[in-house]
Amino acid sequence: MTEPFRIALIQTTPENDPEANLLRAERMCREAAAKGAVILCLPELFRSRYFCQKEDATFFDLAEPIPGPTVDRLGTVALETETTIIAPLFEKRGPGLYHNSAAILSPSGDIQTLYRKMHIPDDPSYYEKFYFTPGDTGFFAVDTPHARIAVLICWDQWFPEAARLAALDGAEILFYPTAIGWLPQEKAEFGETQYDAWRTVQRGHAIANGLFAATVNRAGREEIEDSSIEFWGGSFVSDPQGRVLAEAARDAEEILMTEIDLSLVEETRRNWPFLRDRRIDAYDGLLQRFRSDTHPPSSSSLDPSFSSSKRR
Amino acid sequence: MTEPFRIALIQTTPENDPEANLLRAERMCREAAAKGAVILCLPELFRSRYFCQKEDATFFDLAEPIPGPTVDRLGTVALETETTIIAPLFEKRGPGLYHNSAAILSPSGDIQTLYRKMHIPDDPSYYEKFYFTPGDTGFFAVDTPHARIAVLICWDQWFPEAARLAALDGAEILFYPTAIGWLPQEKAEFGETQYDAWRTVQRGHAIANGLFAATVNRAGREEIEDSSIEFWGGSFVSDPQGRVLAEAARDAEEILMTEIDLSLVEETRRNWPFLRDRRIDAYDGLLQRFRSDTHPPSSSSLDPSFSSSKRR
Repeated sequence: MTEPFRIALIQTTPENDPEANLLRAERMCREAAAKGAVILCLPELFRSRYFCQKEDATFFDLAEPIPGPTVDRLGTVALETETTIIAPLFEKRGPGLYHNSAAILSPSGDIQTLYRKMHIPDDPSYYEKFYFTPGDTGFFAVDTPHARIAVLICWDQWFPEAARLAALDGAEILFYPTAIGWLPQEKAEFGETQYDAWRTVQRGHAIANGLFAATVNRAGREEIEDSSIEFWGGSFVSDPQGRVLAEAARDAEEILMTEIDLSLVEETRRNWPFLRDRRIDAYDGLLQRFRSDTHPPSSSSLDPSFSSSKRR
Repeated sequence: MTEPFRIALIQTTPENDPEANLLRAERMCREAAAKGAVILCLPELFRSRYFCQKEDATFFDLAEPIPGPTVDRLGTVALETETTIIAPLFEKRGPGLYHNSAAILSPSGDIQTLYRKMHIPDDPSYYEKFYFTPGDTGFFAVDTPHARIAVLICWDQWFPEAARLAALDGAEILFYPTAIGWLPQEKAEFGETQYDAWRTVQRGHAIANGLFAATVNRAGREEIEDSSIEFWGGSFVSDPQGRVLAEAARDAEEILMTEIDLSLVEETRRNWPFLRDRRIDAYDGLLQRFRSDTHPPSSSSLDPSFSSSKRR
């Protein structure tokens, strides 16, 4: 049985200068490590403001290769603090080929692996399909010294398939680096519903899969020309039964420390044995885009007598 | 655009006599129809107490064929009230072959289709694997006069795969007839967590799939020999954004009426377009039982350079 350990979600408020954001990340990671955290997670695209509010080709200049300078700097922090650091980055993979990625840096300072965001959103003020090629890494988990973890990024958090695939690969903790907030024109009417849906669907993944979910958001208002997002912070950790163990402020930077007891994964799954009962013989349709237009009415699978009228 | 309409979740407290329970169901269905409901849903195995608290072969006597007497009686109610009735039944399919099923009865009084519970639980006091052969109907949706609906039963409610498959088949409302409650020895310590997880995971399905989820539970304490369950009622309807539109008492019978505006399905999915972005090219692993023991470490999919140490 492993001993409980601490993780840290580094909720930041990025400014315009990437170097300042990286310095802040280094400082907050060292502070979290000093408080005893052994796995640290930064928010999605933490090194810059959320440039996807606009489609502007000059913003591709913010990207960098992996390995590259940011990973080198944070790898040094991981090495010196003996921590695992999840570093979400705007990845330049090749000429004209960019991803929304997250490097997992091991306590040896190396890049252990790289996840490339698989589900790419595109909504007003979140024009990610302009910038990011959908990932080709698939969904997977990796061993760190303290836990087997998976990284998924923001929009992934709405897809039960992503969480399930990570769980089936043995993940005990899902980390969700995120950049999500309110559009000012929507907040009054839809703000609380959006926030609660975001929290609920991820707690649902934790419950359905019997694992911890740790979501790291940025906080604060960012504006680009006429577009504005109020990032809602609220980084949180859900345990395998959907209980919120810790939750950050909605409007400020914060290092959210949470103690994780992995024995709860086995304990929860013994009592809620969902993995035992999956009907993998009947899930083929999950690989389809839509089904209601591609197969005959379902009554065809039943006795013909069911479709005959028995009343006049 | 369809007009809003009403559905009714018939939360009952079954007694020992199946005929009394069926009479109660008929009466409550007629009452719900009189209040304007057009789709009515009864709880799982509503015609009897929850016999699965014990493994006792004499309880197979409670089963009946479909078509059969209960479906005939409720079909008459459907015909006379011009409603769709979801009738969950203990189905005797053949000698020694039983299912936990739900018939969908159309306003013509006919059996439109039959769903057989696909995920079968087995936990202390819920010995369903003794009684029920796992269903062979798969997951599907069917058209009723007012909405395209899917029926899933109890344990199914914990499986995101079931909800997704129903959604991909065009379901606008998921109905979950259920029999879930607290074991007295667990309630004080785990009761609220269990209740909240149950509610959360189903609201999560509504959100992830952009549809309504309508869950119908039974209420009240039932005892068989030394086993006891306090069924927690709390039938509820979640809208496609996870908002709980209506919720029944935890400890009493109730006809829970809810107005459904199906335009919210399209409206929600336009703003949260999850179905647009599913990565069906990367979901194959969902058809596997487990993956962490059946494939090489995920870093193999990355540049070989990532696994070489760059620090000394």
